[in-house]
Amino acid sequence: MTVTSPERARTLFRAGAASPTSGWAPGFTQVNLIAVPGDWAYEVLLFCQRNPRPCPVLDVTDPGSTSTVLAPGANLATDLPKYRIWRDGELAGEAGAVPWRDDLVAFLIGCSFTFEAGLTAAGVPLRHVEQGRNVSMYVTNRQCRAAGRLRGPMVVSMRPMPGGMVDLAVRISGRMPEVHGAPVHVGDPAELGITDLARPDFGDPVEAEPGDVPVFWACGVTPQAALMASRPPYAITHSPGYMFITDVPDERYRIA
Amino acid sequence: MTVTSPERARTLFRAGAASPTSGWAPGFTQVNLIAVPGDWAYEVLLFCQRNPRPCPVLDVTDPGSTSTVLAPGANLATDLPKYRIWRDGELAGEAGAVPWRDDLVAFLIGCSFTFEAGLTAAGVPLRHVEQGRNVSMYVTNRQCRAAGRLRGPMVVSMRPMPGGMVDLAVRISGRMPEVHGAPVHVGDPAELGITDLARPDFGDPVEAEPGDVPVFWACGVTPQAALMASRPPYAITHSPGYMFITDVPDERYRIA
Repeated sequence: MTVTSPERARTLFRAGAASPTSGWAPGFTQVNLIAVPGDWAYEVLLFCQRNPRPCPVLDVTDPGSTSTVLAPGANLATDLPKYRIWRDGELAGEAGAVPWRDDLVAFLIGCSFTFEAGLTAAGVPLRHVEQGRNVSMYVTNRQCRAAGRLRGPMVVSMRPMPGGMVDLAVRISGRMPEVHGAPVHVGDPAELGITDLARPDFGDPVEAEPGDVPVFWACGVTPQAALMASRPPYAITHSPGYMFITDVPDERYRIA
Repeated sequence: MTVTSPERARTLFRAGAASPTSGWAPGFTQVNLIAVPGDWAYEVLLFCQRNPRPCPVLDVTDPGSTSTVLAPGANLATDLPKYRIWRDGELAGEAGAVPWRDDLVAFLIGCSFTFEAGLTAAGVPLRHVEQGRNVSMYVTNRQCRAAGRLRGPMVVSMRPMPGGMVDLAVRISGRMPEVHGAPVHVGDPAELGITDLARPDFGDPVEAEPGDVPVFWACGVTPQAALMASRPPYAITHSPGYMFITDVPDERYRIA
């Protein structure tokens, strides 16, 4: 199902629908969510500043608030299709809505789904959309620069595409640095420490077509890997691939 | 005097030389400095995240450290040509070196001098360099988005240039969002609340040539205006126009 209005999409999710959001509301910016207790907020923001490719911050909320300037009418506690709740760095559960705490500070981080409309418009095939699947995501062997107690590996999303399309994908995504920008790697997954593309750490396996090469982008699931490594007492995130859809047109994040 | 090596420039400044740095070490990234006590660090970082045009953060130091990844051999307390020391939001003095405190966290913020080499290479004249002056900077009527206790107006730098060169200047600087990116305004200064271009709030007055129009960029002196408005007990900054010269080639911050 494709829904073209961000508000309509959020209304469906608030009512209980749960779907990966790739292909939803094309032309509007999608974001990753990570919310932590206030005494972890500086370290999360610093971690993001020190790792801007995986963690471009588009908004930070005031403590306890479920509102964001990226979608003024929305509620961050109910309007995502699927959430994850974390305790001491362990996944405690998934849910369609989450209780919000007065001390929670939410970080909204750019998502590569945002430039997919541009790829599609240029004729670059999106295999995961064609196959009706969530994008494949992998934990890599590249360590992020730490920030206080927060550390962890970079996570990447992967899109297989014809080798002759890679230059287009680089140029189109490279103009959007606030939603991860250009790919961090093209080709051999082993260079990133990925042993089997058919077994992603997050999302679904996606089948490549003959002549496709894997193209890897830094991914906003990286803060979730940092939660697992750094074990703050409590956190809320989106479920990988189940993003928050904002009211901001993609165009705002296009540089050139 | 023009010096082409960042390290040689910093050595001269450490020995006591004091000069605006526009035109120094062309091809290397220059940055603004603001250092505040640790209990203000989150608000400064959040203020920068919420106002990325004037305040693109390129590095944040650990508390008490005078080292930065942007220039591993440098000392932030001695290697700038001129510093300002602030107490309770008032300018307490200027100096060629500063005492560093154990609780200080330094923010290094992109500077528009970084794209001047690109403008020069494209034939865009830099009047302040031709006239041997510091660039003109102005406080505007545009308020930044506040972050906790930190608020204040946006500051801009201004470069007069022939009207036919504006498109080049937009395209060249627009590709470098981490050093302020494209201009925020072209033409009538009154639109920004600036009443007299001949009386800048920071830097020197610069004379326009016939046919020039004023072109305004968001400026990394904006955090100094926020210090004046928000009055933290203590802060250290660079003196406007007297920047920290890093070892990072400009090219690293060019997007497309």
